[in-house]
Amino acid sequence: MRGIAVVTRAVVLARRPRLTLRSDDLRVAAIDLPPLGEGEVRVAVRCLSLEPFTRLYLDERLLGGAIPGIAIGAPLPGAGVGEVLESRHEGFVPGDFVEGRTGWCECAVVNGAALRKLDLALGDPAMALGILGLPGTTAYTGIVEVAGVRPGETVIVSSAAGAVGLIAGQIAKALGARAVGIAGGPDKCALVLEHGFDACVDYKAPGLAERLVEACPGGAQVYFDNVGGEVAMAAYGALAHGARVALCGLLSHYQDEGDEPGDLGRFMRLIMSKGLRVEAFATALRCPPSALPDLSRWMKEGAIRLPVTTVQGLDACPAAYVDLLEGRITGKLIVAIAGG
Amino acid sequence: MRGIAVVTRAVVLARRPRLTLRSDDLRVAAIDLPPLGEGEVRVAVRCLSLEPFTRLYLDERLLGGAIPGIAIGAPLPGAGVGEVLESRHEGFVPGDFVEGRTGWCECAVVNGAALRKLDLALGDPAMALGILGLPGTTAYTGIVEVAGVRPGETVIVSSAAGAVGLIAGQIAKALGARAVGIAGGPDKCALVLEHGFDACVDYKAPGLAERLVEACPGGAQVYFDNVGGEVAMAAYGALAHGARVALCGLLSHYQDEGDEPGDLGRFMRLIMSKGLRVEAFATALRCPPSALPDLSRWMKEGAIRLPVTTVQGLDACPAAYVDLLEGRITGKLIVAIAGG
Repeated sequence: MRGIAVVTRAVVLARRPRLTLRSDDLRVAAIDLPPLGEGEVRVAVRCLSLEPFTRLYLDERLLGGAIPGIAIGAPLPGAGVGEVLESRHEGFVPGDFVEGRTGWCECAVVNGAALRKLDLALGDPAMALGILGLPGTTAYTGIVEVAGVRPGETVIVSSAAGAVGLIAGQIAKALGARAVGIAGGPDKCALVLEHGFDACVDYKAPGLAERLVEACPGGAQVYFDNVGGEVAMAAYGALAHGARVALCGLLSHYQDEGDEPGDLGRFMRLIMSKGLRVEAFATALRCPPSALPDLSRWMKEGAIRLPVTTVQGLDACPAAYVDLLEGRITGKLIVAIAGG
Repeated sequence: MRGIAVVTRAVVLARRPRLTLRSDDLRVAAIDLPPLGEGEVRVAVRCLSLEPFTRLYLDERLLGGAIPGIAIGAPLPGAGVGEVLESRHEGFVPGDFVEGRTGWCECAVVNGAALRKLDLALGDPAMALGILGLPGTTAYTGIVEVAGVRPGETVIVSSAAGAVGLIAGQIAKALGARAVGIAGGPDKCALVLEHGFDACVDYKAPGLAERLVEACPGGAQVYFDNVGGEVAMAAYGALAHGARVALCGLLSHYQDEGDEPGDLGRFMRLIMSKGLRVEAFATALRCPPSALPDLSRWMKEGAIRLPVTTVQGLDACPAAYVDLLEGRITGKLIVAIAGG
């Protein structure tokens, strides 16, 4: 059995893409497969899933080094469904259908622990790359676990005609929420509406921000973001105060090599690659009743101290305020007003 | 009593600032006070608190119209502590000390419902503008309620020498966490260390990003952000996966009029003015066990459908992937591989 498929065809990185990926940045090549180690499985790939996120691995600068990029000549990573040819993992025998990170190749050697055996009774094995695969679980995780969508809420979904977006909106509907899609062009918008979304806004037509606001009376409570960039900015504008954004993908920033410290794409890629939660708050709305008692106690105990910079009278305010904005004040800036 | 203080001195907006506020964008002027209405209180102001956030009200473009800016000639908003001169609210009598939104003026008419009566036993009434006022409750809300800091965690705080930042780090310490400050210049860093922070990084010295990473071995779990911009970008780089950011202020974007849809400042001001929670997620880390059972059920019920675009063979991958990144694919893109 050691002789099976030691060479396979694969799609590999031919050269680092410059901004927009060109199809000749990739090429099909013959690559050697490693010998089958203990716990590994050799899989004949039947279907591959191509995922926008893979773009980030083609140029490590896009993630600021947080995730190493793949080497020139290496196969592209991605999910596939296939048939087991040979197994050194107790969970699989030849003929099993499995789903896992095969990469873009015709035959793959994969650690069995990372493979999922498919139940063919659920239908076409390719479904394991769709509703019952990463697009489905990703949409579910974002809508149910991260955003916690509740009945009656309005949920905006970008890339609504893409696999994850289309499922995300339908899950929102299944949970009793209202789904508003964003997609490019009338055909995609029609497809989104056919899948049960309550509205779909075409981002290629003028006035996206205004039309989104109109489609979300009172503001939306959730935005499921697959794109970032200007579409995200418009969606944020249509959100209600205190809304939740589930940041799933950044299609508009995958081909954007801006790497300045003030660059929006770099910023959003950092949030995404680190799985951060960024939460803005208004003290008046969120301050718990324990605040003043705890602060008083800590102050009395000497655990919290605050130096105060005091200036005298209203006439000192304009210059003192400029100092505050420009970082020349330490501690708290207080203006004392003489008794009037 | 109706005759008291119908005119007061106030700091008003003289003209809209262009980028950096100049002290002559503000001026001191005499303004008329309205007659005391039912439920209102007239307060002689003794101390005023100047707050960086006020800058946003001086130019409504900074918040994209989300909050109306103040008019030319209007007093600047802000918190003050003062003595009640006259009251038409049952909770206050002349001589009481109170804290509330008096604005930048010597005498103010304020709705009694928005005033807080001060307990002079707690000390100097000016403390009500510090640890026991908005800086204290803001730091507390961010550290305790929004970030949920736990013992043993590392918390990065920007503007650590400012009122809110200095209190935030001390609260983190009181909760058993490690506090790492960011401040500008050696004097401020020394002040921060004197207040019990475990480390303080000077953002004016070179290599901020690298030094922050060194100060947070293993990565920080929380970032309490008062500034945004490049300092935030460096702090994000020093965070551990799944970290929480409590977005409290954006000092670096208060004077930044960039309003392009791709502008980082505009983006962060949107998050802040709407009190949004933006959460990126990795499906592999967050997917709940209910996902596949729910998805299977919804699929069988017809509640979730997914159109599939299929291309044939590895050789079709490069061009199909470019189509996917450029938004020309609807639904799920699958590559079928002939049996090999």
